[in-house]
Amino acid sequence: MVGVNAAEDTRAAGELDPTIAARLKRDSAGLVAAVIQQYDTGEVLMVGWMDDVALHRTLTTGRTTFWSRSRQSYWVKGETSGHGQAVREVRLDCDGDTLLVKVDQTGPACHTGARTCFDDRVLLSGDER
Amino acid sequence: MVGVNAAEDTRAAGELDPTIAARLKRDSAGLVAAVIQQYDTGEVLMVGWMDDVALHRTLTTGRTTFWSRSRQSYWVKGETSGHGQAVREVRLDCDGDTLLVKVDQTGPACHTGARTCFDDRVLLSGDER
Repeated sequence: MVGVNAAEDTRAAGELDPTIAARLKRDSAGLVAAVIQQYDTGEVLMVGWMDDVALHRTLTTGRTTFWSRSRQSYWVKGETSGHGQAVREVRLDCDGDTLLVKVDQTGPACHTGARTCFDDRVLLSGDER
Repeated sequence: MVGVNAAEDTRAAGELDPTIAARLKRDSAGLVAAVIQQYDTGEVLMVGWMDDVALHRTLTTGRTTFWSRSRQSYWVKGETSGHGQAVREVRLDCDGDTLLVKVDQTGPACHTGARTCFDDRVLLSGDER
């Protein structure tokens, strides 16, 4: 089992498991969408973007890490706000271009202070139909 | 109110409400991500992509319409499979690049026959943590 352990060590150093990497269908910027869902209530909290490194960190640190398309840098949710996301489960969709990450959110998920990033802008509500 | 009704008529003919269009932050292909969620159970069923026309059709027909990036064409969920999505609510996120669409799904949401597109590929499960 020495070989397996050596491979594990390499991955822990920062490289995404190649069997997972092979299943990803990245966009032209090397990213997949990550839907972040509160594990117990089912609330969709936010959507972020991950490249291989961000996904590796999310899988191995237990904290969600994203790639910011506007700032062109990695960010760990809650690192500055304290409103972190403890990772409970990570799934990949059927065509490999979207992740579903179930988390336990501390405090509000949105930078506006709202519980979720979808709280404030309703385009169509059940009442209208 | 004649003017308002005329505007409504124009929109019904295929143009997205300009006040909504102004709030969208589209990617380089003119698309926003759309997270599709079962309205009552909270299951995340799938993620698709919408441009202005697909969003307009989703808002006005009550059926989800997407833009297929691989086929470069519009598709209405369930049009061929019968497994459609009746739209209950549509929300836009805080930075305008993601929609949350709550639906009532008929049958399986995934083309594989699974209930959701996230059923089969678990990268990290609660049992491992």
